[in-house]
Amino acid sequence: MSTHKQLTIGLFGFGVVGEGIYRVLNQTPSLYASIKKVCIKHPDKKRDAPAALFTTNYDELLNDEEINLIVELIDDADEAYKIVTTAFRKGKSVISANKKMIAEHLQELIQLQQEHNVSFLYEAAVCGSIPVVRNLEEYFDNDLLQSISGIVNGSTNFILTQVADGASYSEALLEAQQKGFAESNPSLDVEGFDATNKLTILLAHAYGILTEPASLLRQGITRLHAKDAAYASEKGLKIKLVAQARKLSSGKVAAFVLPQFVKADSQLFNVNNEYNGVIIESKLADKQFFYGKGAGRYPTSSAVTSDISAFGYHYQYEYKKLNRKEKNALTNDFYLDVFVSFAAWTDVNKWDFEELTEYHSTADRQYIRGIIHAEKLRDASWFNDPSVSIIVQQDGVIEKESLVHKNLKKVSLQLAGVGF
Amino acid sequence: MSTHKQLTIGLFGFGVVGEGIYRVLNQTPSLYASIKKVCIKHPDKKRDAPAALFTTNYDELLNDEEINLIVELIDDADEAYKIVTTAFRKGKSVISANKKMIAEHLQELIQLQQEHNVSFLYEAAVCGSIPVVRNLEEYFDNDLLQSISGIVNGSTNFILTQVADGASYSEALLEAQQKGFAESNPSLDVEGFDATNKLTILLAHAYGILTEPASLLRQGITRLHAKDAAYASEKGLKIKLVAQARKLSSGKVAAFVLPQFVKADSQLFNVNNEYNGVIIESKLADKQFFYGKGAGRYPTSSAVTSDISAFGYHYQYEYKKLNRKEKNALTNDFYLDVFVSFAAWTDVNKWDFEELTEYHSTADRQYIRGIIHAEKLRDASWFNDPSVSIIVQQDGVIEKESLVHKNLKKVSLQLAGVGF
Repeated sequence: MSTHKQLTIGLFGFGVVGEGIYRVLNQTPSLYASIKKVCIKHPDKKRDAPAALFTTNYDELLNDEEINLIVELIDDADEAYKIVTTAFRKGKSVISANKKMIAEHLQELIQLQQEHNVSFLYEAAVCGSIPVVRNLEEYFDNDLLQSISGIVNGSTNFILTQVADGASYSEALLEAQQKGFAESNPSLDVEGFDATNKLTILLAHAYGILTEPASLLRQGITRLHAKDAAYASEKGLKIKLVAQARKLSSGKVAAFVLPQFVKADSQLFNVNNEYNGVIIESKLADKQFFYGKGAGRYPTSSAVTSDISAFGYHYQYEYKKLNRKEKNALTNDFYLDVFVSFAAWTDVNKWDFEELTEYHSTADRQYIRGIIHAEKLRDASWFNDPSVSIIVQQDGVIEKESLVHKNLKKVSLQLAGVGF
Repeated sequence: MSTHKQLTIGLFGFGVVGEGIYRVLNQTPSLYASIKKVCIKHPDKKRDAPAALFTTNYDELLNDEEINLIVELIDDADEAYKIVTTAFRKGKSVISANKKMIAEHLQELIQLQQEHNVSFLYEAAVCGSIPVVRNLEEYFDNDLLQSISGIVNGSTNFILTQVADGASYSEALLEAQQKGFAESNPSLDVEGFDATNKLTILLAHAYGILTEPASLLRQGITRLHAKDAAYASEKGLKIKLVAQARKLSSGKVAAFVLPQFVKADSQLFNVNNEYNGVIIESKLADKQFFYGKGAGRYPTSSAVTSDISAFGYHYQYEYKKLNRKEKNALTNDFYLDVFVSFAAWTDVNKWDFEELTEYHSTADRQYIRGIIHAEKLRDASWFNDPSVSIIVQQDGVIEKESLVHKNLKKVSLQLAGVGF
């Protein structure tokens, strides 16, 4: 049996998760962990815990030599960054749930952590209660990962589920916020930034790739049109916001966050409301699927508690894939099979596509389906046009070798009498 | 960074999994592991590896002081037991995939392992590539588990999938054997023994309960009738062999392996063919679902390789729940909502039921649905009658407090003119 560390915790944040952790630790002596001090922003709020526990002064926690673990559960990514880096420099280990802060500073944080020989765990930052980081890190560390694709943002998934059931987008967003699934700044969720942050963290553990979240191809759900939902429903499909990374035959990795049509045969089809789900495809283990709640008080508390427990057993991420000789790298040199819907036929330049396989025109909405190079998509002027909605097909990553230049576009569209 | 053990492995068995592991280790220097000797049964079989690697003498591996890890992948549970216990006594750690051996001797094996301060890992023994043991052990160690229920046997699930698609039971069994999903002794699979073995192992890691697999309520799939499959399909249900353990309001745990009707809203509904899936419900993490291949060369190799890697990082199961003050215990004091089909109306004693909620009679098959005490079911003469098929309902565990004694049975069946 390995020996237990006695954990003396400095906690930042006493919201629903922070308070939950405080109660769990009080009730679970087997964790050998106690909270010595809690740093809060608003000292006047009424809290169900001894007043002496609280302070508004960061340094009371960070300078306390008895505190060997900082649990950081605050919303503000910039403040969180200061707290975490200061804690590392003072030789304290950290558990954090702040995906934005982690994703934006991951390389630096890993370096600092290693320099100061401390532990840095953040399972709660990705898919809430689903142990995906730990499993990628530990369990799949020697397996060749072909792909990882998942619904990693509970609030957009809640919204998309409600919209598929007939709600309007704004009704659904409001309900997500009322239920506490949406971030305080909903654009982080609905514009896909939060999913991109999580994908950034997953890339480090799945492929040993460190990247900036801002450099990933990204599209949120704000531009999805009611007609898109109707189209999906008619075809027996669901629209989900999917983060994915896929190893190409070139050896490089394609990674992006885009709305995606999901078929009933996919495990992601039944991931509804605030649930998250991640499919991992690998050479040995084949297809694996992890499903659970991605947001909310208890799922987040669950992940943080598991990290506290693991830290008590001296656990730390090894980032084994970062230290391998053969490095993985990202590429945008691949093609996507996308569905695009838009208001006026001239909104989208069809010449951007390698081939067009379908198109459909109605009085108020136009649709095309085609294969487009990822970079061309990202750079297209219509990619950022609020009236254009882009949805990638399931298994929609196409490699150059599989491209068949049917060159249907000119012929078929001209037959239909539609100009370019 | 923690330090790596250099692993010198003695391998028992060189079937598809053993050979797979041999190749993976040769190709993965980052595992710091090499196979020094392989013990086989049939020395004359042609093998694609140096002849000097092989021996038929157990002791050459077990007495070799350089070998610090035994990887045991043989079929014979009794031989495996001898190998594993001898290895422990000689201070060697063990990785095993032999669920029968582990389930039948778990208490003794844990004691021996602790006495000799060695590690014993067996992720491959339960649900193949799905890291369910490791996650129960590590990730859910402080969460209150409400239930765990899963499809844990790939070959019966393959057979049930084929039968649901119209195949006969014998065709489906043959195909499962041809594809290598079925054990060499298929009765281990189809009679539910294999699932019971896995449930025994899960009980130790989920609840800290050590039990004999033979003492668990069990029914395999051999007695399912073609009419049952037709009934399920008509109602939009699937029949799955489900192992489950559920914490009752009394604090005790109900555990059994029975065929179960699964509804489309359950994550288990889409677990088909040789795939396995496990739903874990807990207080904090809420509902989690793990899905992956439960059998076959690569999934098993994946689990064994992950265990080798974990062992290299000094990992061992802590069996934390076994050492807790409040012990969990099994009980058969609960009720089950079951569907029973049988040939002649007198085959089943309806007085065994607390209440009957449905019955249906046709020329060649009779059906009843009712609530029955688990012990009464286990002890009923018709429980072991080959012509009687028993299928539990989804969420079919009923606690005493929820029982409503409608006493419908006498009235309704008499109305129908059916004698008891």
